[in-house]
Amino acid sequence: MAEKPKKPQKLKARLPRGLEDRDPAAIKATRQMVEKIRAVYELYGFEPVETPAMEYTDALGKFLPDQDRPNEGVFSFQDDDEQWISLRYDLTAPLARYVAENFDTLPKPYRSYRAGYVFRNEKPGPGRFRQFMQFDADTVGSATPAADAEICMMAADTMEALGIARGSYVVKVNNRKVLDGVLESVDLGGEANFARRLTVLRAIDKYDRLGEEGVRLLLGQGRKDESGDFTKGAGLDDDQIHEVMTLLHSNPDVAEGKQLPQWLREDSKTIGHDLYTTNQATLTKLRAHFPHPLCQQAFDELEQISELAHACGYGTKRILIDPSVVRGLEYYTGPVYEVELLLDTKDEKGRPVRFGSVGGGGRYDGLVSRFRGEPVPATGFSIGVSRLQAALTLLGKLDTRPEFGPVVVTVFDRDRVADYQKMVSALRTAGIRAELYLGNPKNMGNQLKYADRRNSPCVIIQGSDEKARGEVQIKDLIEGAKAAAAIASNQEWRETRPAQFSCSEADLVAKVREVLARHDVSWG
Amino acid sequence: MAEKPKKPQKLKARLPRGLEDRDPAAIKATRQMVEKIRAVYELYGFEPVETPAMEYTDALGKFLPDQDRPNEGVFSFQDDDEQWISLRYDLTAPLARYVAENFDTLPKPYRSYRAGYVFRNEKPGPGRFRQFMQFDADTVGSATPAADAEICMMAADTMEALGIARGSYVVKVNNRKVLDGVLESVDLGGEANFARRLTVLRAIDKYDRLGEEGVRLLLGQGRKDESGDFTKGAGLDDDQIHEVMTLLHSNPDVAEGKQLPQWLREDSKTIGHDLYTTNQATLTKLRAHFPHPLCQQAFDELEQISELAHACGYGTKRILIDPSVVRGLEYYTGPVYEVELLLDTKDEKGRPVRFGSVGGGGRYDGLVSRFRGEPVPATGFSIGVSRLQAALTLLGKLDTRPEFGPVVVTVFDRDRVADYQKMVSALRTAGIRAELYLGNPKNMGNQLKYADRRNSPCVIIQGSDEKARGEVQIKDLIEGAKAAAAIASNQEWRETRPAQFSCSEADLVAKVREVLARHDVSWG
Repeated sequence: MAEKPKKPQKLKARLPRGLEDRDPAAIKATRQMVEKIRAVYELYGFEPVETPAMEYTDALGKFLPDQDRPNEGVFSFQDDDEQWISLRYDLTAPLARYVAENFDTLPKPYRSYRAGYVFRNEKPGPGRFRQFMQFDADTVGSATPAADAEICMMAADTMEALGIARGSYVVKVNNRKVLDGVLESVDLGGEANFARRLTVLRAIDKYDRLGEEGVRLLLGQGRKDESGDFTKGAGLDDDQIHEVMTLLHSNPDVAEGKQLPQWLREDSKTIGHDLYTTNQATLTKLRAHFPHPLCQQAFDELEQISELAHACGYGTKRILIDPSVVRGLEYYTGPVYEVELLLDTKDEKGRPVRFGSVGGGGRYDGLVSRFRGEPVPATGFSIGVSRLQAALTLLGKLDTRPEFGPVVVTVFDRDRVADYQKMVSALRTAGIRAELYLGNPKNMGNQLKYADRRNSPCVIIQGSDEKARGEVQIKDLIEGAKAAAAIASNQEWRETRPAQFSCSEADLVAKVREVLARHDVSWG
Repeated sequence: MAEKPKKPQKLKARLPRGLEDRDPAAIKATRQMVEKIRAVYELYGFEPVETPAMEYTDALGKFLPDQDRPNEGVFSFQDDDEQWISLRYDLTAPLARYVAENFDTLPKPYRSYRAGYVFRNEKPGPGRFRQFMQFDADTVGSATPAADAEICMMAADTMEALGIARGSYVVKVNNRKVLDGVLESVDLGGEANFARRLTVLRAIDKYDRLGEEGVRLLLGQGRKDESGDFTKGAGLDDDQIHEVMTLLHSNPDVAEGKQLPQWLREDSKTIGHDLYTTNQATLTKLRAHFPHPLCQQAFDELEQISELAHACGYGTKRILIDPSVVRGLEYYTGPVYEVELLLDTKDEKGRPVRFGSVGGGGRYDGLVSRFRGEPVPATGFSIGVSRLQAALTLLGKLDTRPEFGPVVVTVFDRDRVADYQKMVSALRTAGIRAELYLGNPKNMGNQLKYADRRNSPCVIIQGSDEKARGEVQIKDLIEGAKAAAAIASNQEWRETRPAQFSCSEADLVAKVREVLARHDVSWG
């Protein structure tokens, strides 16, 4: 079957934009991160569930912020029966489908977690991928803010389990109902204003990045960015804009002119603050400014979250009420949360890198009821595993040292491959990673170079002389590399042959074990 | 943002055909299987690499057997720039793209492994899914049959690591070049006969299922199946069919009228055979029958594989040359392998279930060179994790007992949620899985039912009386279930209140630990 008619011409090997291949260090780091997150989620009583990568498009719904693009942010295709199927863009919408489908058999509240890749048909950019991993936990069937409080505490515990020190992250909390109430109080309620409210929400979502002036423009007539592109605004008048900006300024520190994330970042001592007291002050101010009943209900919920966190010792440095948090996804209906890394670093060009949000979530009381026709309250949280991993890698907080490769048994006489393969088998049986050199064996230098490339701790060599004596040579590559640094000439090297020794065939496994032990080689 | 214009009507919560949700037991089993397979692959010196779930359609190529369907077995969509992207249908084609793209920086031979979901746009059926997991290992840049032999041995080791006893599986080996040579010798070589050769290959691939008569029909004019559907045959004449059938009969046991897989299954003692001797006999017969040079080259390669396996002790019960193995994928060019489970079981209706192939692979020397314009030999192997897991589950070889759920702290007085949450925090800090009951707390019975549903080892209760005394109640649900079986009346139950005791608030963690230890509760 080797030939094929119309054999394609030489293809270009390349990945579509926004996708990436992952190397051993990245894979190992992800595995370790996933295990640590899983341990925290399980400690909190969540159990695993997994849904497939694709769903009916209508079941997923259209809740992504980037609605201007043709596919509205998702990858879709039509099935044989003409129904549209999409790749999941998050893990929340599929969970809502799962819960609705299995509602009667699940314990309620239903508390579950899941990790997996999600897909966004977006314009890729630096650090912005079209496939990335999320790790979610959700409580479905619980309306109490205690469920939201728990998720905020779990978010904090997860950050610390991942090695991010207290004070180097903060869990920010807000409530979508605050904004809903404020907008209703300035005559922007009702279905007719749905699109404008969405524009307001997205403007606020950019507060962190664009600052006060940028948000004011987006709330008003619109904003031209550096590239000259104009984004149409929500068309609010000055009074309406004033109300929204008052909301954003309700945190005392923001009111003093310090934009919140900047404040947390610039004055690292401030994060030592008792955030519980800050939260109380924020709530007092908010209650006075925004009498709308929806707002007052939102403040009650936020207060319960803050009180519960305080009771459990999370009031210091960890959980902060921040009225500028909105989250981009449309489906949230109540408390929303966002985990922000407060660590700074510089990129290759020395420019400061802000990581921003590495996780978030909120209450989505309407998502399951889309299927059920009865209210099903739910709240959940998602760690952006890929994004957080990128941040931790830049910060040097992940172990990216290459693992040791296998012991390489070289091929000296190519008609004795079976002998060499037997040595490999013996090493493997002893639990030692090992392999036969499977390239062209004509050149021993290439075989040693290969072992170097694989970061092998040692290689095994058996020529006909050694074979005749019933011996093998073991070349300790770790010791050898050290010796090479100390030896001046090729001649000296050849004469001393450092880090290479013979042993009897019967001692092969024991001697290799000694080499591994000497250098603390361990795998996995 | 609660209301949205044109709110969708009540949706039906359902998954597209051929997709499945996975529960905690299935997820745990997969995780354990993946860890075991990974350990074997790493012992063999393979290192991890991961590619994304999607690739350019042309980079994946079209090698699936099911070419009649519109999308030829893959899920595809067009990108913004009109280029076609497909979900991967296996892990081999993406690896070929990866190796070609990174050829100059990779050590060669390049030995890597990866696990992941693959997607087939196929007609789903029982045990046949459109998303399933594979776990592959590949050696790229090695032309020697030693690389193929190693993969066969690794396949055997993997089965045993997964708990499948020696003799309960067999690794069957063949070589695509045998068939190529046979077909060339009966004037079916050349590009003009490409399609017919493919039909022959697919007919042979069905030998196991259709038996000799079915294959003869498919090699000739065609075959009508039970449902009346007619499959057009390869149109071979009697002499040509005779040659192909002789090839299939070249295993001595097949020649004696025992169709090979049947033989292995029906007479379990036979698998105790020294398969090395069987392989030698098969090769002797094949060499005599098929003088074509391509065949002779194939036999040499098969012999080397058999000899190396024999040298390493895999000659007994494990690796068998079987000329009926072809593998469905089009891209193989040399040795092909298939792992067959020899265990039988019955389905729910008492009908015998044949598992057949749970893994396979082969040499695909042309796949990387599609991109490079130079020969790049490669060979690889894939475990069908989902398929194997389904088989092991049916065989009762996977631990599917539910895990213990968290300790549930119940809510007696709803204005003391903070107190209860503090107990939960204390338990979690001690490493004990715990949660606050987050449903409506008005009914204690519902809270206890929830704890039962979650398989919780115990629940914590604190009413106002206990609070006043500084105590908590611990209800041991495991002991309670035992007691319930022994107690006759509700009255006796209420009076004795078995398996429930009080302790001081300060002793909560220690007493819960005692309950967990008493019942050997461990998680994870």
